[in-house]
Amino acid sequence: MNLVLLFPEDFVNGEPCGQSSRVRIEGRRSKYVREVHREMLGDELCVGLLDGAMGRGVIVAMEEDRIELEVVLDRSPPALLPLTLVLALPRPLVLKRVLICATSMGVGRIVLVNARRVEKSYWQSKALEETALREQLLLGLEQARATSLPEVHLRPRFRPFVEDELVHWIGGTEALVADPSGAKPCPRHIGGALTLAIGPEGGWSEYELERLSAVGFAAVHLGERIMRVETAVPALISRLL
Amino acid sequence: MNLVLLFPEDFVNGEPCGQSSRVRIEGRRSKYVREVHREMLGDELCVGLLDGAMGRGVIVAMEEDRIELEVVLDRSPPALLPLTLVLALPRPLVLKRVLICATSMGVGRIVLVNARRVEKSYWQSKALEETALREQLLLGLEQARATSLPEVHLRPRFRPFVEDELVHWIGGTEALVADPSGAKPCPRHIGGALTLAIGPEGGWSEYELERLSAVGFAAVHLGERIMRVETAVPALISRLL
Repeated sequence: MNLVLLFPEDFVNGEPCGQSSRVRIEGRRSKYVREVHREMLGDELCVGLLDGAMGRGVIVAMEEDRIELEVVLDRSPPALLPLTLVLALPRPLVLKRVLICATSMGVGRIVLVNARRVEKSYWQSKALEETALREQLLLGLEQARATSLPEVHLRPRFRPFVEDELVHWIGGTEALVADPSGAKPCPRHIGGALTLAIGPEGGWSEYELERLSAVGFAAVHLGERIMRVETAVPALISRLL
Repeated sequence: MNLVLLFPEDFVNGEPCGQSSRVRIEGRRSKYVREVHREMLGDELCVGLLDGAMGRGVIVAMEEDRIELEVVLDRSPPALLPLTLVLALPRPLVLKRVLICATSMGVGRIVLVNARRVEKSYWQSKALEETALREQLLLGLEQARATSLPEVHLRPRFRPFVEDELVHWIGGTEALVADPSGAKPCPRHIGGALTLAIGPEGGWSEYELERLSAVGFAAVHLGERIMRVETAVPALISRLL
């Protein structure tokens, strides 16, 4: 937790306003500040309002399970990347890690999509419930020191998603699908908006690659080594943007 | 497991020789081939000899807990990257993931080093025992479809390592230390040999950055977002090489 994320309801006098505001945090965040960071009265923390400004907070009161901070929010958060990540739904444990990773890197939009080699049971996972998804996104923001949430979309039907939605979303972006079968090496530093599709363990099926190609995706590879999804995501984003 | 890794002792008639050899695998590998990949008699698998050639193996016998393959090893494995990764020892669970990731990406040499913000208890972890380290490396090779093991070195004393060893190892390489305080952005695609130092959660101490700078490291950053070690490793490698 490199940033204490604040929510409107944390502000003692309602929404943040003016130069300095009083906030009260409890539960997990309070415990973390006290027990992991071992902060004390008078210490200063990096704070940020969800989907809002960032700044600093000074601890002005500490009780059993509650910390009060005097915060000043005077900086813009890091901008989101102009990147839509289309990810074949990974198994739940990997999904959690990838959501934290993608959020921490600033991905603007994450779409979890079905694919032939996605196990059907993954779509029943509790990790896809709204509160569970949100928890990983918040962890990613706290990790990165950022406040802007990515959009997350679930698309359990591959073809209608690709043909009715994705085809419009990729307008004005470079659209790449990563696959070991890709005809050309993944480019570097494309310097514009990107739509990046990453397949499941086992890869996209031929049919899926054809459908993506039909709407305008170019297939690229990262060499002959096959990466886990949680390696491929940061490796591709970092190389492309 | 995208490749079944073979060891000299798997070869029924001793070391592999000539066009085709018979191998016998048991235990974890056999179970994986049967239960996860659901391969059957006559199916063909990607195989590779540890630190040797790669090729294909056809299943010629299956018993309860044993599979026999007729293998042909006729391809060179992917080359190791000319990269020494100097990593402040992460906590054991993260270490395992990072070792798999770094091995799968082809890092040639991994040095696990102490730093001020590394918890002392990490050095007592079972994850640092030779068999445990090796297990993660093998998983990384099986994932990537590669056979060349990286070197792994443990250096529980930071300063003697940097001043007596690292100073020599960085000769002829670009030596970079990743830190949010870095003066310049991390370069892209340096196109030569690289020594890359990545700090612990919480970052390198000022003293450590000074020592690394004194022997020739340049400090670089990846923007204002702070990444987990398991995100930073693939992101930096992929951007630099």
